[in-house]
Amino acid sequence: MENSNRKIISRRDRPAKEPLSNELIVRTAYELLKEEGVAGMSMRKIAKALDTGPSSLYVYVKNLQELSSLVLDYGLGQLVLPEPNEESWKENLFGALNAYFSLLYEEPGLAELSFSSIPVGTNFLRLTEYILSTLQDGGVKSRSAAWGVDLLLLYVSSVAYERTTKKKHGDMQIAKMKEAFQNADPVLFPILFGLGEEMFSGDTKSMERFHWGIEVLIHGIQHFNK
Amino acid sequence: MENSNRKIISRRDRPAKEPLSNELIVRTAYELLKEEGVAGMSMRKIAKALDTGPSSLYVYVKNLQELSSLVLDYGLGQLVLPEPNEESWKENLFGALNAYFSLLYEEPGLAELSFSSIPVGTNFLRLTEYILSTLQDGGVKSRSAAWGVDLLLLYVSSVAYERTTKKKHGDMQIAKMKEAFQNADPVLFPILFGLGEEMFSGDTKSMERFHWGIEVLIHGIQHFNK
Repeated sequence: MENSNRKIISRRDRPAKEPLSNELIVRTAYELLKEEGVAGMSMRKIAKALDTGPSSLYVYVKNLQELSSLVLDYGLGQLVLPEPNEESWKENLFGALNAYFSLLYEEPGLAELSFSSIPVGTNFLRLTEYILSTLQDGGVKSRSAAWGVDLLLLYVSSVAYERTTKKKHGDMQIAKMKEAFQNADPVLFPILFGLGEEMFSGDTKSMERFHWGIEVLIHGIQHFNK
Repeated sequence: MENSNRKIISRRDRPAKEPLSNELIVRTAYELLKEEGVAGMSMRKIAKALDTGPSSLYVYVKNLQELSSLVLDYGLGQLVLPEPNEESWKENLFGALNAYFSLLYEEPGLAELSFSSIPVGTNFLRLTEYILSTLQDGGVKSRSAAWGVDLLLLYVSSVAYERTTKKKHGDMQIAKMKEAFQNADPVLFPILFGLGEEMFSGDTKSMERFHWGIEVLIHGIQHFNK
């Protein structure tokens, strides 16, 4: 987590200018991502933070898309996967997905980035392999494992992305939704109206609803096993 | 779909200036969303497109968050839900989710917006109620229906969001991932390596993998029924 404490300061204020490198560019891009999201991670902004012109960056990285993949994998380098428990593949699976969720939730831009960049780095492969091995231990066959890992990781990313964008607005978000749902016309929306508080149960504060989603996915993946 | 043909042109070039209104602001914001995504939908940019200052917008909408909700619901106004077939709740459920997916996929900014704004408008309630009624017809009880509708809509949004951001990069995206997966070290990543092409089967061109995900979710929701 070394990189998370580094602040971007104008290079002019620093004692010596660190020579430009692939690693420095990725690290700088990652800091911008954490501060401003994917929109903040433009070649222009990265160059500015490094006190150089965008053209010097292209010596090290082909384009923004390639850089995005590198940044995603750099962020995933912080992921600590649980030591596998031989007794319980499900515990291992939950452990890995929880770790992935926590990382995406703590480092907001990462969830957003996972949607727009191509995950081709070693750290992503490591996560994928881990999940695949838990599914294999759970008796899931090839195609269902291949499609299932995708489904599980997408689920985690999307919950993390939704929660990080919404936490910016605080609890007002939930309050507004509750208000809208509770004021819904009972003639037009009878079921919704009837469910009332249930629509919001097990949410945000606890991880109950998130974990229920994982259980649902695992069960379905095991059922459609081919 | 009337709004989709409207182009944003400088107001100075138009014969008469349409008076500012809540509806005009929402419509303009939606056009910007379609062109530039959520980042393009700032109060400043909307004001500029309307040839006015941001402060005049606040007479009509409280803040960007409120406007985002209105824009999301404006976009969802185009959603055509299938006439329910009394015989098959599952066909209805698939029909509604397919329609939602197509809309989010055709109007790219909408998928992104669904993650960051509070869905409180009538069109979102209508979609929610429709899905709830199909689940109820499928024997799903209160809590599972309440949590299940959330899960299903999140799944559709996230696939649409991922595909719209990735389609910008074209087929290169898939080619790069295939390359990375196929060049993965078979000692470090044996399962991944062994799966080979299966990791990419049923993807993008067909809807097979997307529909498999819906089947997985429905089965799991029906199983964890409380």
